[in-house]
Amino acid sequence: MSNTNIHGIIGYTITPFTAKGEQLDLDTLGRSIDRLIDSGVHAIAPLGSTGEGAYLSDAEWDQVAEFSIRHIAKRVPTIVSVSDLTTAKAVRRARFAEAKGADAVMVLPASYWKLSEAEILGHYQAIGDSIGVPIMLYNNPATSGTDMSVELILRIFNAVENVTMVKESTGDIQRMHKLQLLGEGQVPFYNGCNPLALEAFAAGAKGWCTAAANLIPQLNLDLYHAVLDNNLDLARALFYRQLPVLDFILKGGLPTTIKAGLNMTGLQVGDPRLPVFPLGEAGRNQLQAMLNAVR
Amino acid sequence: MSNTNIHGIIGYTITPFTAKGEQLDLDTLGRSIDRLIDSGVHAIAPLGSTGEGAYLSDAEWDQVAEFSIRHIAKRVPTIVSVSDLTTAKAVRRARFAEAKGADAVMVLPASYWKLSEAEILGHYQAIGDSIGVPIMLYNNPATSGTDMSVELILRIFNAVENVTMVKESTGDIQRMHKLQLLGEGQVPFYNGCNPLALEAFAAGAKGWCTAAANLIPQLNLDLYHAVLDNNLDLARALFYRQLPVLDFILKGGLPTTIKAGLNMTGLQVGDPRLPVFPLGEAGRNQLQAMLNAVR
Amino acid sequence: MSNTNIHGIIGYTITPFTAKGEQLDLDTLGRSIDRLIDSGVHAIAPLGSTGEGAYLSDAEWDQVAEFSIRHIAKRVPTIVSVSDLTTAKAVRRARFAEAKGADAVMVLPASYWKLSEAEILGHYQAIGDSIGVPIMLYNNPATSGTDMSVELILRIFNAVENVTMVKESTGDIQRMHKLQLLGEGQVPFYNGCNPLALEAFAAGAKGWCTAAANLIPQLNLDLYHAVLDNNLDLARALFYRQLPVLDFILKGGLPTTIKAGLNMTGLQVGDPRLPVFPLGEAGRNQLQAMLNAVR
Amino acid sequence: MSNTNIHGIIGYTITPFTAKGEQLDLDTLGRSIDRLIDSGVHAIAPLGSTGEGAYLSDAEWDQVAEFSIRHIAKRVPTIVSVSDLTTAKAVRRARFAEAKGADAVMVLPASYWKLSEAEILGHYQAIGDSIGVPIMLYNNPATSGTDMSVELILRIFNAVENVTMVKESTGDIQRMHKLQLLGEGQVPFYNGCNPLALEAFAAGAKGWCTAAANLIPQLNLDLYHAVLDNNLDLARALFYRQLPVLDFILKGGLPTTIKAGLNMTGLQVGDPRLPVFPLGEAGRNQLQAMLNAVR
Repeated sequence: MSNTNIHGIIGYTITPFTAKGEQLDLDTLGRSIDRLIDSGVHAIAPLGSTGEGAYLSDAEWDQVAEFSIRHIAKRVPTIVSVSDLTTAKAVRRARFAEAKGADAVMVLPASYWKLSEAEILGHYQAIGDSIGVPIMLYNNPATSGTDMSVELILRIFNAVENVTMVKESTGDIQRMHKLQLLGEGQVPFYNGCNPLALEAFAAGAKGWCTAAANLIPQLNLDLYHAVLDNNLDLARALFYRQLPVLDFILKGGLPTTIKAGLNMTGLQVGDPRLPVFPLGEAGRNQLQAMLNAVR
Repeated sequence: MSNTNIHGIIGYTITPFTAKGEQLDLDTLGRSIDRLIDSGVHAIAPLGSTGEGAYLSDAEWDQVAEFSIRHIAKRVPTIVSVSDLTTAKAVRRARFAEAKGADAVMVLPASYWKLSEAEILGHYQAIGDSIGVPIMLYNNPATSGTDMSVELILRIFNAVENVTMVKESTGDIQRMHKLQLLGEGQVPFYNGCNPLALEAFAAGAKGWCTAAANLIPQLNLDLYHAVLDNNLDLARALFYRQLPVLDFILKGGLPTTIKAGLNMTGLQVGDPRLPVFPLGEAGRNQLQAMLNAVR
Repeated sequence: MSNTNIHGIIGYTITPFTAKGEQLDLDTLGRSIDRLIDSGVHAIAPLGSTGEGAYLSDAEWDQVAEFSIRHIAKRVPTIVSVSDLTTAKAVRRARFAEAKGADAVMVLPASYWKLSEAEILGHYQAIGDSIGVPIMLYNNPATSGTDMSVELILRIFNAVENVTMVKESTGDIQRMHKLQLLGEGQVPFYNGCNPLALEAFAAGAKGWCTAAANLIPQLNLDLYHAVLDNNLDLARALFYRQLPVLDFILKGGLPTTIKAGLNMTGLQVGDPRLPVFPLGEAGRNQLQAMLNAVR
Repeated sequence: MSNTNIHGIIGYTITPFTAKGEQLDLDTLGRSIDRLIDSGVHAIAPLGSTGEGAYLSDAEWDQVAEFSIRHIAKRVPTIVSVSDLTTAKAVRRARFAEAKGADAVMVLPASYWKLSEAEILGHYQAIGDSIGVPIMLYNNPATSGTDMSVELILRIFNAVENVTMVKESTGDIQRMHKLQLLGEGQVPFYNGCNPLALEAFAAGAKGWCTAAANLIPQLNLDLYHAVLDNNLDLARALFYRQLPVLDFILKGGLPTTIKAGLNMTGLQVGDPRLPVFPLGEAGRNQLQAMLNAVR
């Protein structure tokens, strides 16, 4: 299966709400997508962690998925996160995304109960069997509660034909080394841990999945290009320049900080849904100062 | 606020499904509830982890909550788990449960994003403000991803009037010691970690929230009574007798093992929903042997 | 091999120094030993963590071992901690302790490099082959860096004839449950985690190895006797009464806090050796208040 | 204070023993040092973890320190690891090393008891006050049991004049980022985690402290030079080529694997001291195959 050559800077979208997080604000979502594409990102990933996918009703999820795909309109590839707690619901979402035109789907093995390796494999197999587009397997124990070993990831990669990409977000660079060595250089891996951007590219990552592209897209893109140009000194300098922002959005939570940052720039995307709080005043001042420093 | 004197053995219900996990089987749910009550449990908790609450659609959740409360019919107190990812949805569930007659609700601060202490407090405050029945605060980082310190638990206990009970499931007995010391003996705490049953009672727990009561209720009750009788030697002997079963259901996952055990006894409750697998043959043989040994 | 029936409260000795930690003060060591024996402890363990064994030169270690054994003079059993980084040095210490009259030795698998299970077993085998007195195997990953699983402990217990006792200090009560179940009730285990004293006895521990006996021996002994009398309510009350002191000495470090406490009572034992600091004024006031409260 | 411009590949020496680990074999130590220097390493560090410094008697330690410094004879800088459990003994070793001609000393805050930040700072201050050569502060919680935060490291760096270098071995690349950002690029840091070699250089490490230079010095040096040449693609290729060896020596333990590797090449350095075992046959075959593959 072709993996549609997804690479470079993969921007995550937020999900804008009206006051008190009550309604979706799709107009603003459209504008935030246009910004990402205009800034030059290589692909877009709606409904990820940043997009508060877990906090939407099923009906809302469908609306956001359909709208995002239609609005992106193949200007860049779209990778829709379709994770859900039961296999049945994840399959439904994956089929829906494919039907609406997604280029790929992303799957985190979210679960309430700790899953065995056979259960995780079964989950990916069931989703893979239901769709014809590529799957980006996503490992992020901090949010899913499930940590897939490199050995398990490779087992799934080999067993499920349309699992063709791996997104690694543990923050442990040794996982990428192991993917590269055990996968004999044949497993495309993507970095999902922002403060690891430099090292992930050094280790051979094909792309960087990041919500930072909503705020500092040029720095994200410049880092990628410095790596493509084999210019380590420049890549290092660009990385340290943006690292304070990367650290800040990781620690503050992506929906909280990215929404605050977009609100500062005049795109009113509202607040995250409760129990998640919007960024407080001290945090907003800190973020504004950081953004001023790198512009 | 009265906390309705909840104590002793608090039995968790499973949620029976028809073939392939597709439909709810409320008839069988009713029979499993009757069994628990006939065995002598002191209270019943529907829709907890054991009840696969996280794997139900909103409509299914409402059906199970309403049916359970009506079927229990005040024979013993009912504590409904109303946890949900957003505050708005948790409030809705809490109100629904109260309206249908729940004696108390249980709230785990489930979230996708790591919550700050202020966010967790806000979540409990919002739920507390919305209902008039007591809330059992539930700490279980292994499933919720959020670990509440004893200091935070006491802050919530003191700030939210109808948070009147604490269920501790970290498995760390020092948490209970600290609740007892810092709470000056005024905070009723309940044990949610099965293999800690003896020590939790030794430390002063008022009750034991357990799915084991579906399989070995008499042993659970006998342990509680030995503690009430101040008979440590008997309590220890009873604890070690049931410990292999307690360890087994914890490691194997509660819906998986409890459903398998009920199926063995002639109550056909079906399998857990995928991605969770039913218990394999080796596991069933092991469980059967353990249950034979203690009967 | 007889294990000399070691049980109950096993008191740890400190090692008193003259000013600035320079010289041993054996006279004061003798007085601290007499105090422990007069208070009623069932056994004494010199040169453990509390005794700063790791901070002594080899010559000092020999002096303290020989003096302690001679001074105890069989009034109660003596268990000398003989742990050392190399097997050769641990064997030398074990032989020395036996030659001077120790009733048993205690061995922690201290190492700089992480040891394999075969290396740990080899270490115990070599020591066991070199002496004729019983060995108390000691598991304390927080200080040794090596965590022995219950399975490994039982393998050593079965393979090395004179390993006849197990001291468990992980603070995880499940380890004791597992020792009891897998060891079929035939493995005498002792508790080395002070704030777990109540639960360890509830779980069946044969003794409690504690430095607290230097400060609050009567409370330690009363707890043990309440358990022997099968009086859980009394044991619980006694435990919570002494728990603040047990928590304090654990968090503050045993040599630091026990020496401070002894200095308060008029037995001038000096300070711990640097880099370990003596207890500061705030800590001394806190400890004094706690000791006043329980006397 | 000048820090003698230590950079590049800093090779760790082993400590050769005669049969059964009984005696030092200084002749062979001399030959292993000559090999390191002839291969082109930029500095040598005797008596580190690889050198089994913790397993030597005080007399042996002195012999190895004095011999190493004299034999290196300023051909490259010598950094002697002088860590010891008490401050008094570490000061003695530091003075001894300086008196014999060491260019710098390395200090790990080894301790049996968990040290407070004030105790750690006091330890470095006392050593710093006692000598006139630079100190490389060494953070390695896996062997020392003490994890120094970046904030503490910078506090010590600023407070103790001759602490002029930091060796970071946690394996967490974010520590190096933080040292670079918070230290405003003025804190020279060195990598002590072999499988992090590529990323540490990418992040700006000034040197790589490695025992691998005993076995594959040319690959170590080539990686360093590729980084100096700003050639990321070459550095990545060289890193993945040597990574299997780096992973192997980390997992197998440095004295065990490096001694086995040297024995294979005809330099008979003996075995590590018990309880550490020499490398078994399967491991030797694996290592030999790896070394053949990269030569």
